[in-house]
Amino acid sequence: MATIQDIGVSAAINILSAIVFLLAFAFLRLQPINDRVYFPKWYLKGARESPSHGGAFVRKFVNLDMRSYMKVLSWMPAALKMPEDELISHAGLDSAVYLRIYLIGLKIFVPITVLAFSILVSVNWTNNTLENLKVQHSDIDKLSISNIPSGSKRFIAHLTMAYVFTFWTCYVLLREYEIVATMRLRFLASEKRRPDQFTALVRNIPPDPDESISELVEHFFLVNHPDYLTHQVVYNANKLDKMVKEKKKMQNWLDYYQLKYERNTSKRPTTKTGFLGCFGSKVDAIEYYTSEIERMEKEEAEEREKIMKDPKSVVPAAFVSFQSRWGAAVCAQTQQTSNPTVWLTEWAPEPRDVYWDNLSIPFVYLTVRRLIIAVAFFFLNFFYVIPIAFVQSLANIEGIEKAVPFLKPLIEISTVKSFIQGFLPGIALKIFLILLPSILMFMSKVEGLTSVSSLERRSAFKYYIFLFFNVFLGSIIAGSALEQLKTFLHQSANQIPRTIGVAIPMKATFFITYIMVDGWAGVAGEILRLKPLIIFHLKNFFLVKTEKDREEAMDPGTLGFDSNEPQIQLYFLLGLVYAAVTPFLLPFVLIFFGFAYMVYRHQIINVYKQEYESAAAFWPSVHGRIIIALIISQLLLLGLLSTKGAGQSTPVLLVLPVVTFYFHKYCKSRYEPAFVEYPLQEAMQKDTLERARDPWFDLRTYLMSAYIHPVFKGDEDDEKFSIADESEAEQVLVATKRQSRRNTPAPSKYGSESPSLPGIVNDQRL
Amino acid sequence: MATIQDIGVSAAINILSAIVFLLAFAFLRLQPINDRVYFPKWYLKGARESPSHGGAFVRKFVNLDMRSYMKVLSWMPAALKMPEDELISHAGLDSAVYLRIYLIGLKIFVPITVLAFSILVSVNWTNNTLENLKVQHSDIDKLSISNIPSGSKRFIAHLTMAYVFTFWTCYVLLREYEIVATMRLRFLASEKRRPDQFTALVRNIPPDPDESISELVEHFFLVNHPDYLTHQVVYNANKLDKMVKEKKKMQNWLDYYQLKYERNTSKRPTTKTGFLGCFGSKVDAIEYYTSEIERMEKEEAEEREKIMKDPKSVVPAAFVSFQSRWGAAVCAQTQQTSNPTVWLTEWAPEPRDVYWDNLSIPFVYLTVRRLIIAVAFFFLNFFYVIPIAFVQSLANIEGIEKAVPFLKPLIEISTVKSFIQGFLPGIALKIFLILLPSILMFMSKVEGLTSVSSLERRSAFKYYIFLFFNVFLGSIIAGSALEQLKTFLHQSANQIPRTIGVAIPMKATFFITYIMVDGWAGVAGEILRLKPLIIFHLKNFFLVKTEKDREEAMDPGTLGFDSNEPQIQLYFLLGLVYAAVTPFLLPFVLIFFGFAYMVYRHQIINVYKQEYESAAAFWPSVHGRIIIALIISQLLLLGLLSTKGAGQSTPVLLVLPVVTFYFHKYCKSRYEPAFVEYPLQEAMQKDTLERARDPWFDLRTYLMSAYIHPVFKGDEDDEKFSIADESEAEQVLVATKRQSRRNTPAPSKYGSESPSLPGIVNDQRL
Repeated sequence: MATIQDIGVSAAINILSAIVFLLAFAFLRLQPINDRVYFPKWYLKGARESPSHGGAFVRKFVNLDMRSYMKVLSWMPAALKMPEDELISHAGLDSAVYLRIYLIGLKIFVPITVLAFSILVSVNWTNNTLENLKVQHSDIDKLSISNIPSGSKRFIAHLTMAYVFTFWTCYVLLREYEIVATMRLRFLASEKRRPDQFTALVRNIPPDPDESISELVEHFFLVNHPDYLTHQVVYNANKLDKMVKEKKKMQNWLDYYQLKYERNTSKRPTTKTGFLGCFGSKVDAIEYYTSEIERMEKEEAEEREKIMKDPKSVVPAAFVSFQSRWGAAVCAQTQQTSNPTVWLTEWAPEPRDVYWDNLSIPFVYLTVRRLIIAVAFFFLNFFYVIPIAFVQSLANIEGIEKAVPFLKPLIEISTVKSFIQGFLPGIALKIFLILLPSILMFMSKVEGLTSVSSLERRSAFKYYIFLFFNVFLGSIIAGSALEQLKTFLHQSANQIPRTIGVAIPMKATFFITYIMVDGWAGVAGEILRLKPLIIFHLKNFFLVKTEKDREEAMDPGTLGFDSNEPQIQLYFLLGLVYAAVTPFLLPFVLIFFGFAYMVYRHQIINVYKQEYESAAAFWPSVHGRIIIALIISQLLLLGLLSTKGAGQSTPVLLVLPVVTFYFHKYCKSRYEPAFVEYPLQEAMQKDTLERARDPWFDLRTYLMSAYIHPVFKGDEDDEKFSIADESEAEQVLVATKRQSRRNTPAPSKYGSESPSLPGIVNDQRL
Repeated sequence: MATIQDIGVSAAINILSAIVFLLAFAFLRLQPINDRVYFPKWYLKGARESPSHGGAFVRKFVNLDMRSYMKVLSWMPAALKMPEDELISHAGLDSAVYLRIYLIGLKIFVPITVLAFSILVSVNWTNNTLENLKVQHSDIDKLSISNIPSGSKRFIAHLTMAYVFTFWTCYVLLREYEIVATMRLRFLASEKRRPDQFTALVRNIPPDPDESISELVEHFFLVNHPDYLTHQVVYNANKLDKMVKEKKKMQNWLDYYQLKYERNTSKRPTTKTGFLGCFGSKVDAIEYYTSEIERMEKEEAEEREKIMKDPKSVVPAAFVSFQSRWGAAVCAQTQQTSNPTVWLTEWAPEPRDVYWDNLSIPFVYLTVRRLIIAVAFFFLNFFYVIPIAFVQSLANIEGIEKAVPFLKPLIEISTVKSFIQGFLPGIALKIFLILLPSILMFMSKVEGLTSVSSLERRSAFKYYIFLFFNVFLGSIIAGSALEQLKTFLHQSANQIPRTIGVAIPMKATFFITYIMVDGWAGVAGEILRLKPLIIFHLKNFFLVKTEKDREEAMDPGTLGFDSNEPQIQLYFLLGLVYAAVTPFLLPFVLIFFGFAYMVYRHQIINVYKQEYESAAAFWPSVHGRIIIALIISQLLLLGLLSTKGAGQSTPVLLVLPVVTFYFHKYCKSRYEPAFVEYPLQEAMQKDTLERARDPWFDLRTYLMSAYIHPVFKGDEDDEKFSIADESEAEQVLVATKRQSRRNTPAPSKYGSESPSLPGIVNDQRL
């Protein structure tokens, strides 16, 4: 068992690496050449431009202003300064609410840490059980519940604290649910006119021998919905989409060769026509790619025409728009026909949030797909060790030599050999873990969800389960999930919490180290953005010709709800489980929440690009997972105490999960509808207001081309209906907000005095 | 273990008692004096009248027509003759679909029985395991899976059959769900105009300082629902209701004494004013009750006035009616405001189906109430043995002597003593079991459901759980549910199906006896209606003065979904569990389903009064419980086989519950909406049709007093909006249908040739 010294060493290493990352970040972000890597969001907003015009040449790339280097941590207060309302208008409600997850962590765990240290630590510390038992133990164990003798009356303190922790957590969760729900409603109410407010997505339109899908939709809704206005059919443009992507790739190569030629005009670049440019006959690269692109443009135009003409390329789904928000709200929430498998209606996602490939899946297939994915995920979760072990057994020296004999001489070089032997097995696992979020996202896509935001939520759920079994339980009872499965099947229902509960205090030091590696150094690594940095400079050097190319070379990335949120949840789980058992772990969790809050606030303000706005639709699942963590912590404490001769406490503790569960049910019925439904009163109010304000607005034209597959849109109006449409009014504000390019954003004139949303201000002015 | 002979004896006894019941029924029902007991439904329909006018005096009471006695079982074909469409118009869709539950039993188990006997019995029989083992065994065991040696290849037959049974059951369930859903939709489409089609129930209306609830409702819906027409507030009339009931009781006593005086005019009857007429001063009974009734009438009138005037007697709930079915469908299916705890809307139940007491429960209390009832039901289910044991321990001789010492001389008489000692403990349990459905119904009422039909469904769910643990599992692993709970907690997840599975074959004979007692003799007892028979004659003798009193003395009873359906489900469970294990049990289940089908069909046609029409809203729960039985049977077979050395079959069998579960999910999403939602298309169609047909109908007047608390209604218009309204048109038909009074219904002229509903016919004619 690790002593405090061991943990100190580990902490020193991790703090050091975190500091190195932070210093590197502080240095790199000040270089103008990296400006697009560390502040892409401001470029996307149009508040920054490339520093190419004016100034000395060298200043374009290196920052020579020495004073700015002194303020290494200046980004931290800057990241915290922007008030929440401004953050919402700057980065969307999703991002603002996402940050609240970290804040909840602080809100829950600061009082819990104080209480646990002032009461539980003293209760634990003033025993000599471990010394008396003469078992090997560390100072951390002396602070934990392990130090209390079996059957001691002191467990009453832990029981009481379990109650206090539960009620405090529930209180914070309730308040937070209320706040987020209010934020969401205020956000939705303050939003400007948007196509999705008037639109419902209709799927599974039944085939009709006499009418085309478009006619059918029109007739159906004209009859059944007095508010029907117009609709847009969905084209199956998967092939066209592929062609466009292919063309883009060609264009990249053309750019690359043209740039190469420009830099060295003496020699025309050549390429080979075969696979990856390695085989086949040699041709002039620029000519080859120019002709290829021309050919593809022609094909693309043909395909476009074909799609628009062929009735078979219309999938049985449509976006139906209404004259009023009220009409759309009614359509989205009601059942249309007596057969619930056709004419399925739901709220249309934002145009940019639509996941087009899944719009045409027939109803029966959805159940089958879900079954298949459920089984596949079960195996992925519990048996993922097997294929990796198989790959590892293949990926040894002999295997490789057998498979590719001609590499034998190379492999036999001793340094290469030792490298392969040392790293290959680990690499297989590492690759799997890196690929995991993509695998889970792929699974969610197969399940047939129709919006990117819901896909991310579903993937997050899967990832959480994976982390729970393979990281949390896997570390505690030290075995793969497969072995756990066996254990659970062969143990009785009241034995399982015991088995896990007993192991909990012993694993505290492991999890402390885990938090420092993953939560401290990992988060510091996030702010450095090493991968986007490298890729941007490579692209910048090889491909970028125009300002627009440089724009495209930026990879601001997204918040990544599907992989980040489950990781935060792991810290909630650890904090709650160890709160009553080994309070010493709590400060480490606290530091994670505080540090990560600052880092992600900075990233959200300066880096991430918002791909959709779900108005915090993910909150119910965040709330639900914290509740799950709470119930698990209660059950494990129950298991632990029953092995410590405090079995009579079982009924007292059993009350907690039941009450927590009903608390969850209450929250669900009280707040969840705010995240799922769209109330008619709100819709009616907005409709009435808008009609009074702008009675002659031509809604039909406005909605005409809102839901067109992105492939049919020109590049210029690509974002017409999403960001641009929203930020139109605040563009002016943004420009005034950000003047200095050397520093991170200063607080705007819309400081903390004015808590109203710009959107609202704007609304009222109109 | 019982041999075939033992079972034969038991069967003989039960068949004999069933025959005695049937003969008694055949005799009693032919006596005109019992006509109101055995054919009350026809009286309610107005197709029969008391045989007081005309005929010899004796003929009023005794049937002297000897020929009719010859046809003892004539009711059976008669009960089967009425075609389903006529049954629906005669007794409602609920009753007709309820009968289909028995039919499903036959559809599932007839092919399963044939298969099981032709394949499994021969596979089992041709072994000698039990003989070789020299264990005590019966012939039934030789037919069961116990006779197969451990690890035999013959288990493949059982595995295959498990698959075949599962697929057959699922197929029948799917088809049946489809049929019932179609029937429901057809029924709803063919219904005449009814208040609940235009009405939504609104609950949790938030308090407003400036407006009364009625004004608030009007303003809210005028603004948010263009289709709003009118509304009715709900008065808290619980006190008035009590007064009316009290008055009725007084009236009964008055009638009783008046009749007594009429029969013996020489002596004025007297009564005492105190408790139960046993204490207090002696007064003239007729005068006393007349004055009491007068006093109460005055009080009642005051209370009525108070309720109508006092704004506090209006509860925050209202029935809101719309101009169209479309408007009501929209309101019932959507969320009204951003706060999901106020302005809750749902479909209004039929006026007669409303459970008035629960309309005003605030939202928070609902969660708390549900939590309390969940905990209470948990204890009732698992710990009900404890209070009964406590009562039993009290209810012994010494306890009674201590509690009421003055009864000691009486108790010490030896016959009384032995009676008490022998019966008291059993009586405590018996009373509990008789009271159980009422206790469960009370629990459901506390949970806050707003319609009688949903209360019955909820109670049925609770009763099913109770039967499953205390009858099914309780008989198999022989112990109270409390002991089972201990066992389950201390056994591993894969051990539990084994423990139960192993015991299954051994309990076959017990369950066969159970089926014969409960399912054969019990059902035969149902048709005899002993309790209503006795009560009717008592009332007839003591209270009945007028024809109307006699009408009221009838107690047709209802179908009793809450206690009957769970009992049928037990037979599904037994049949499915034993199908692959001991096929010998199947014929007994089959006889139950066939016999019960006939008996209940007869009762529904001739006896039960329909208290509400939910249009088969209970079907999803019936379907769900059969699926549960199927999954349990699969798990138990899995457990059993794993102890018989066929552990390698586990993965093969594990597929079944997973597939069954997803089959259920599919059915749920495919068909359940038809039972929960009201599709807009249907609503629109009916609206359009009706507007074309009857454009000047005054809907407002029609709906004005539809939802008035029954206590405010005069007796004469009590049923105006329920049965009378529906049967208006078919009254003529009914009269022609039933002419003979000596026999059960003959098939009407609307025989099987005309499958259309009278309602539809009527609709088309208009």
